[in-house]
Amino acid sequence: MCEAMVYLKDGDKVEPYFENVDKIFAQEEGLILEDIFGEKKIIKARLKELHLVDHKVIIERMK
Amino acid sequence: MCEAMVYLKDGDKVEPYFENVDKIFAQEEGLILEDIFGEKKIIKARLKELHLVDHKVIIERMK
Repeated sequence: MCEAMVYLKDGDKVEPYFENVDKIFAQEEGLILEDIFGEKKIIKARLKELHLVDHKVIIERMK
Repeated sequence: MCEAMVYLKDGDKVEPYFENVDKIFAQEEGLILEDIFGEKKIIKARLKELHLVDHKVIIERMK
């Protein structure tokens, strides 16, 4: 399956944030992420980079 | 592989924009997309929705 590992960039740091992510919805105020099990996380962040073949998504915390 | 079909939302319309996309980089002014063959497209748009298990990415044209 093509779920991805989501990494959170916060200043100079990039750390794993949420694994097995299937869906991400971008809103004005931030992101809603949902993993393949239906678990959700909401965060004040923006989508920054997708590397789909590598199953990797980078989001960046909003200031 | 986990490349995706990218759809462009422009007002009420949603149309296929770029297939076999591997990488997307979000910038202030828009998006840089790259397919698995290394072909690139640049567009004034924002990442809107990811449906990774369905290999589907929706971007929205910036006004």
